[in-house]
Amino acid sequence: MTTGAQALITSLLGGGVEVCFANPGTSEMHFVAALDDHPDMRAILCLFEGVATGAADGYWRVAGKPAATLLHLGPGLANGLANLHNARRAHSGVVNIVGDHATYHRSSGTPLASDIGLLGDWLDSPIARPQSSDDLAVAVMDTVAAARVGRIATLVLPADVSWSKVSTPAFGPAASRSADPRQPGAHDIDLIAGRLTTLGDRALLLIGGAGTSATGLIAAQRISQAVGTRVLVETFPARLAHGRGVPNFERLGYLSEQAVAQLAEVQELLLAGAQHPVGFFAYPDKPTDLVPEGAAVLTFAAPDNPHTAAALERVADALDAPAVALGTAVPAPELGTGPLTAWNWVGVIANLLPDNAIISDESNTSGLMLPTATRACARHDLLTLTGGAIGQGLPVAIGAAVAAPDRPVIALQADGSALYTITALWTMAREHLDVTVVLLNNRAYAILQLELQRVGAEPAGDRARQLLELDDPDIDFVSIARGLGVSAMRATTVQELAHQFQAAVHEPGPHLIEAMISPA
Amino acid sequence: MTTGAQALITSLLGGGVEVCFANPGTSEMHFVAALDDHPDMRAILCLFEGVATGAADGYWRVAGKPAATLLHLGPGLANGLANLHNARRAHSGVVNIVGDHATYHRSSGTPLASDIGLLGDWLDSPIARPQSSDDLAVAVMDTVAAARVGRIATLVLPADVSWSKVSTPAFGPAASRSADPRQPGAHDIDLIAGRLTTLGDRALLLIGGAGTSATGLIAAQRISQAVGTRVLVETFPARLAHGRGVPNFERLGYLSEQAVAQLAEVQELLLAGAQHPVGFFAYPDKPTDLVPEGAAVLTFAAPDNPHTAAALERVADALDAPAVALGTAVPAPELGTGPLTAWNWVGVIANLLPDNAIISDESNTSGLMLPTATRACARHDLLTLTGGAIGQGLPVAIGAAVAAPDRPVIALQADGSALYTITALWTMAREHLDVTVVLLNNRAYAILQLELQRVGAEPAGDRARQLLELDDPDIDFVSIARGLGVSAMRATTVQELAHQFQAAVHEPGPHLIEAMISPA
Repeated sequence: MTTGAQALITSLLGGGVEVCFANPGTSEMHFVAALDDHPDMRAILCLFEGVATGAADGYWRVAGKPAATLLHLGPGLANGLANLHNARRAHSGVVNIVGDHATYHRSSGTPLASDIGLLGDWLDSPIARPQSSDDLAVAVMDTVAAARVGRIATLVLPADVSWSKVSTPAFGPAASRSADPRQPGAHDIDLIAGRLTTLGDRALLLIGGAGTSATGLIAAQRISQAVGTRVLVETFPARLAHGRGVPNFERLGYLSEQAVAQLAEVQELLLAGAQHPVGFFAYPDKPTDLVPEGAAVLTFAAPDNPHTAAALERVADALDAPAVALGTAVPAPELGTGPLTAWNWVGVIANLLPDNAIISDESNTSGLMLPTATRACARHDLLTLTGGAIGQGLPVAIGAAVAAPDRPVIALQADGSALYTITALWTMAREHLDVTVVLLNNRAYAILQLELQRVGAEPAGDRARQLLELDDPDIDFVSIARGLGVSAMRATTVQELAHQFQAAVHEPGPHLIEAMISPA
Repeated sequence: MTTGAQALITSLLGGGVEVCFANPGTSEMHFVAALDDHPDMRAILCLFEGVATGAADGYWRVAGKPAATLLHLGPGLANGLANLHNARRAHSGVVNIVGDHATYHRSSGTPLASDIGLLGDWLDSPIARPQSSDDLAVAVMDTVAAARVGRIATLVLPADVSWSKVSTPAFGPAASRSADPRQPGAHDIDLIAGRLTTLGDRALLLIGGAGTSATGLIAAQRISQAVGTRVLVETFPARLAHGRGVPNFERLGYLSEQAVAQLAEVQELLLAGAQHPVGFFAYPDKPTDLVPEGAAVLTFAAPDNPHTAAALERVADALDAPAVALGTAVPAPELGTGPLTAWNWVGVIANLLPDNAIISDESNTSGLMLPTATRACARHDLLTLTGGAIGQGLPVAIGAAVAAPDRPVIALQADGSALYTITALWTMAREHLDVTVVLLNNRAYAILQLELQRVGAEPAGDRARQLLELDDPDIDFVSIARGLGVSAMRATTVQELAHQFQAAVHEPGPHLIEAMISPA
């Protein structure tokens, strides 16, 4: 006889879910035991739920298919929510398996009882709650099907459903993706091509979502060269093809002041996979909507549309836009010398980035120069902080490395953000993942020092400033990384960073380089 | 002119809220700036929201009044939920200040937008959402009033309400606690006294909530000696007076098998601040309700009743129960020798615990012998893991140390659980808190190794077992602690632990001792 948990794992595998980022507890023990019968399911232990959910996000962004998470009741899902929020903004599909009390045990006031459904509601995501093994088949198929089209989908698995005997060893393959209604039709393509021809450089194409692949960017470049349309990429793309061989477009600025300037002359804004541009935060006496008054906004493809790149290609074809020349030589940025600053460390990465790398970027204020520095470096995929909930960078790097074991993964990680999910380092070591973490230590929540001024709250006194500084005591990330089993070094100059980075990317296994960033 | 944030802080102070455990972001910058004008509000930076919420819980348990937390939008509150769940189960009052987008910015699809109210619903706790500075006064007063009677209360503070100008510098003192309707009346007291007299040793008094103070325990002892009633303490008390000078009662077992045996002969169960006993988890073919069939259950005081101890005293008086003799000499447990095991490390703590200490206990499986070992050691208060969401121990120790700077705080902390909120160590160092952390490193989720057998899921193979082991790579907590600015040592024998523990508790400032626990 088969248990519900065994049939569930067989069904996940049948639906293409082959990795489970796990932080289990008692109610998940039958699922854990069932893993012994399913060597095809790779179970990866994470020491905090936010690591598991962020890893699943990174896995989707690189593999294009969902991983599972295994979480322990309401508090387990709660600890994973922040990175699921980021995953939702990235339109990443994730299958959450959340163990729950046995059905007959749930309402009896046990310490860990809670209304798990409300947490699914907060994510605005489907949640399946099978009450017996009879319901389990449909629950699994629905959950996997939703995740496969880019949604966070949660299956709450009561312990007694997990341990109950079921009559079939699997529930059959998960429902295949149905014909996707979001594919733009010929009429839409012609409409957009017509608008672009009419407007020329008065239109601006803002690309996001699935449009930021190489295919999408090349199509956008063809369009731009054919009719003069300007092109921008959204501020925080889930996965951006970048470097030599792909067109380099400016990204819409994080700072509203910058974004307003970028959009100032636009008469018509065409959204291809990007959201309507709004400020990240509101500031006194500054606009929230970044689109200039009077400009028209036309949505060509919604942010969760998986066909945006192909649709851009069809528009380029409709315009008879010729192919574009790419890959012309651009000199690498200066490597520089002297102490590391927020301005010069990016040159090291740009010069020494290995081919076909994946960058998980949560460098925040230290990384303001990164897009410019890397625009002509080795071709790579860039994964950014889509939802603004910090602590994403290291977990996403795990998922990327699991999805693409043959590609070097580079995590560019700010200090303050790193500490939310620092135990991700241990999972990197345990799984021998080829991740090089460049930990940018400026000993501050530097973004907040900037924001404190921007919201008009200055002058700040000592007590306010202390809440934004991380230098009392200093945090030693080399020591923390070694404590978590990761080989680590410290770099204070450009030369040291270059030497250590080159060594790290050419050795297997995870490494951490603590780059001490001095004020410029 | 005063900003909303300034008036809010003045009002919190007026309501007795004098400490704020803060992990702010951009939307909280006006609150942060306003701290400069309010030196009476102690703002304590935490590097993860779960540290802030757990610290507020510990503060309440020791100070008996609420602290505030400062959290950043929905993801910030989400990261704090697990320890708020524990705080709710402890009936700790907490004031959460959650910054939100400006009112006019909230629905505009910004990356960090979410429905924060659903997270308050998950906590089953009041949530105030002022939409202008006109609403702020009532919101603050309601929030503080709810927290003062032991509830988690959340004020969602839009950025524009925070920066808006208000006409008064404060909103007046928060509503004082109204006459509490939950005080048992004379009729209840007489009813309970009568039942106890009639039933004698066929009744069992289960004490929890506010009943586990010295006053409550002494009253229970008087009752027991007068009429023969048996007494147990709930499994996970929020704050238990323990050691010499207070009666020592068995705690209801965490393992259902043990609890069923403890309750087997009961004819009537009287609940004084404790919940109806149910299993922590369900197990195949084992009972969920731990009360024997046919036994009556009478609730004398609800778990959130603040008057339980006084009510027990009134029952003892109604029974004319004489005073009890306390503090008789009991030999300290053997200190032992040799490698540290789960059985002998507790003897070190029992022998060397300083007077009037506070123990934050998240030792889990390593601490099974702790209650027995410490029953006659120096008098202390014991704070336990009330809600089962791990990662509570270090944050609660912070809150306890802030609430009682003159008392030594000892955190007995399991390895796996420690890693959920490990950055708590940094806050201990920054605030120079007198906490001694004994980190019990058994290199496993040992509780789950036990639970895997108990749920009937064995025999476990290699792949299942690997998800419960923390030894590949080994985690070096000395290195992690030093990286976070805390002085740290490692002990492998009883003698080393004794030497290091004695030194640590007699020096100011935080210390961590990594106690390597060998299999017994």
